[in-house]
Amino acid sequence: MTTNSRDRALRERARAVIPGGMYGHESVALLPEDFPQFFSRGEGARIWDADGNEYVDYMCAFGPNLLGYRNPAVEEAASAQAALGDTLTGPSEAMVTLAEDLVSMISHAAWAMFCKNGSDATSMAMVLARAHSGRRKILVAQGAYHGASPWNTPNPKGTLPEDRAHILYFRYDDLDSLRDAFRQADGDVAGVFATPFRHEVFEDQFLPSAEFARGARQLCDDADALLIVDEVRAGFRLARDASWSLLGVEPDLTTWGKVLGNGYPISALLGCEKLRAAASSIYVTGSFWFSAVPMAAAVATLAVVRTSDYLERMIARAEEMRKGIAEQAAAHGFGIRQTGPAQMPQIFFADDPDMRIGYFWAAAAVRRGVYLHPYHNMFATSALTEADIAKTLAATDEAFAELKRAWANIPPQPNPAVLARIKAKALLSPR
Amino acid sequence: MTTNSRDRALRERARAVIPGGMYGHESVALLPEDFPQFFSRGEGARIWDADGNEYVDYMCAFGPNLLGYRNPAVEEAASAQAALGDTLTGPSEAMVTLAEDLVSMISHAAWAMFCKNGSDATSMAMVLARAHSGRRKILVAQGAYHGASPWNTPNPKGTLPEDRAHILYFRYDDLDSLRDAFRQADGDVAGVFATPFRHEVFEDQFLPSAEFARGARQLCDDADALLIVDEVRAGFRLARDASWSLLGVEPDLTTWGKVLGNGYPISALLGCEKLRAAASSIYVTGSFWFSAVPMAAAVATLAVVRTSDYLERMIARAEEMRKGIAEQAAAHGFGIRQTGPAQMPQIFFADDPDMRIGYFWAAAAVRRGVYLHPYHNMFATSALTEADIAKTLAATDEAFAELKRAWANIPPQPNPAVLARIKAKALLSPR
Repeated sequence: MTTNSRDRALRERARAVIPGGMYGHESVALLPEDFPQFFSRGEGARIWDADGNEYVDYMCAFGPNLLGYRNPAVEEAASAQAALGDTLTGPSEAMVTLAEDLVSMISHAAWAMFCKNGSDATSMAMVLARAHSGRRKILVAQGAYHGASPWNTPNPKGTLPEDRAHILYFRYDDLDSLRDAFRQADGDVAGVFATPFRHEVFEDQFLPSAEFARGARQLCDDADALLIVDEVRAGFRLARDASWSLLGVEPDLTTWGKVLGNGYPISALLGCEKLRAAASSIYVTGSFWFSAVPMAAAVATLAVVRTSDYLERMIARAEEMRKGIAEQAAAHGFGIRQTGPAQMPQIFFADDPDMRIGYFWAAAAVRRGVYLHPYHNMFATSALTEADIAKTLAATDEAFAELKRAWANIPPQPNPAVLARIKAKALLSPR
Repeated sequence: MTTNSRDRALRERARAVIPGGMYGHESVALLPEDFPQFFSRGEGARIWDADGNEYVDYMCAFGPNLLGYRNPAVEEAASAQAALGDTLTGPSEAMVTLAEDLVSMISHAAWAMFCKNGSDATSMAMVLARAHSGRRKILVAQGAYHGASPWNTPNPKGTLPEDRAHILYFRYDDLDSLRDAFRQADGDVAGVFATPFRHEVFEDQFLPSAEFARGARQLCDDADALLIVDEVRAGFRLARDASWSLLGVEPDLTTWGKVLGNGYPISALLGCEKLRAAASSIYVTGSFWFSAVPMAAAVATLAVVRTSDYLERMIARAEEMRKGIAEQAAAHGFGIRQTGPAQMPQIFFADDPDMRIGYFWAAAAVRRGVYLHPYHNMFATSALTEADIAKTLAATDEAFAELKRAWANIPPQPNPAVLARIKAKALLSPR
């Protein structure tokens, strides 16, 4: 039985001093009431909320938790660096080592620049693409998330048309649409952004065809434009190299974040040799961009990425979970769609236009100690154990059973903000 | 005698994998060769470079080191939180406590939002000002640094005219100029940015008149525009409240960073009650904005700010240093200008148009274990001891003596990038 009195009290206090009680992607404003807002602890694949309720966590802090919360190798490296210093008057050796490691691991990369937010890396990529070519247009897939800066935030409130004056949109995984955008830009394309696969909120996920990825590469080459793959969300969960290495495509720039330091705050822009001069011509910086501890943590994270079977283990556990949930859904008589790579799953119910069913099921799992998300893609960690999967599948099975009992009486989606997002997505939907 | 073989080797490695060998404000590209690029350790007011050379550090990581590197109270709070978790699937109680603490300490603030970079906070302030009023124009002092985003980076390479389409400029501490900018904006002003005092690179610093600060407040009130004071660089080094509290002026928004977590990565936007609705209407977020460790560090930092004499001690030591340097300069026959608050000093030499003299003197101090900066305002920390000041003044006295001996033979400023910056500043100079 979960309790939530401490979470309620914290929400009340937060409402007084934080606009709307919370903001950004970790706000629970679009989630059912059963989802806690505040957390107290993490270890491996588990998190504890402010009331001490324990969960197998399939959000992984919205990505960063690649190797397990408080992974011993990462914590040891971070602690050793912290004992010396973190934010100093100049960078540390760890910055050089980290850049060397990334350049050695990511095929297209000849250099690295570090920053803090994923948005820093994507904005730097945009500025760099323009600096390199002197051209203005940036092509972005319609509805794709590349950060929350004025040029790309999904909610344009407070931004101006000028912020997107030279952003053109195409349909993801649609080469004709991308070709049209190039034509529309009339020789003025600086760069094309793409995520490794389509992973948007309130949408089924899908992988692009190899034909699209290769075609995008070719269109960029033909127009002397840069291909920028935004790995912030998917990096190191599909491959140990850039994600499109699986499709035989080398980007010019990749943007990284989230997993890079296994939770320590660091993001990066990696680029190919021909962009080195442009990269040193732009002025970008931040107060904490040179801090040593997140870099030491990233060096340790990458060592695990290179030398362990973290990826194969993560995928095996995630596929076991996917298979189990598919079997349970069928056994209970529900149609579900599990989309995207198993290790970054999105689960939606058939015939669920206002998402009342998916919300009910996820909340039922949360009440049973398994933190699933009803509208955002989830994330697996390599720290998931057989016991975690067993606990997960026991909880989801009970959640399906509870759903079946409640089926006819589930009230309509009560959250107008959720309904608005669903409607907006239906209008935008790329497929 | 300082050594630098390890620094040289790291620079060589960095040149291969980091554009230009380093980027941003911690690059030594504009500094004399004696300045190390890489550091290994910090403790109190001291830093050690990659070769183990020790310095009394007057850059404080370009600000963040308010209470001393590895301040015990801050480190203890950060460690205790790190043992539980940092970047989790939701925020921790520390976020609420930190917002409460800031609201209780900063007179104008009714709420807080947290982010990572100073640039995040200033960009959020801009977006929020536009969201609140529906107006477009943002007034910024000519040449003032408010971050490195496309709308405000000091080097516009790779940015577009559209990024600044609705930014208008005025002369800092010049009410007529600000009034003109309001007239030019013709009723379309969303907000006015100002730093607490003028603290630009390659320039004498100066405090604004109280008349300017109060006049700016009045102009904003008359036009229903927001007054935004950017505390990222000066916050908590002038006052325990917002800096213009010393002038009797309450801003609508303040932006904070650097010192907030004494080196842990966190920044903040604070706002008044009337902006709460607009603040909850914008979408801004970042992967690490909700991480608990920097928030726990900030709670501990603010407790020291509230309950100790850190500010008075810092100012007393800084004034002792300023007085000593003034006496030494006079004794050695040099004219110098020490501008800005003593705890954020800028030191320039008279009759030094290409800065060869200032560069020589700062480098001579660096070689003697005192890290001074020749073109960027410096920062004092409350961890400065009497022994640090004694070491500093012994080194600066020797540096003056060395300068006097070398005087007639100092070669012209050899760095064309420095000369370009000096020239650009002469053209822009606000006074």
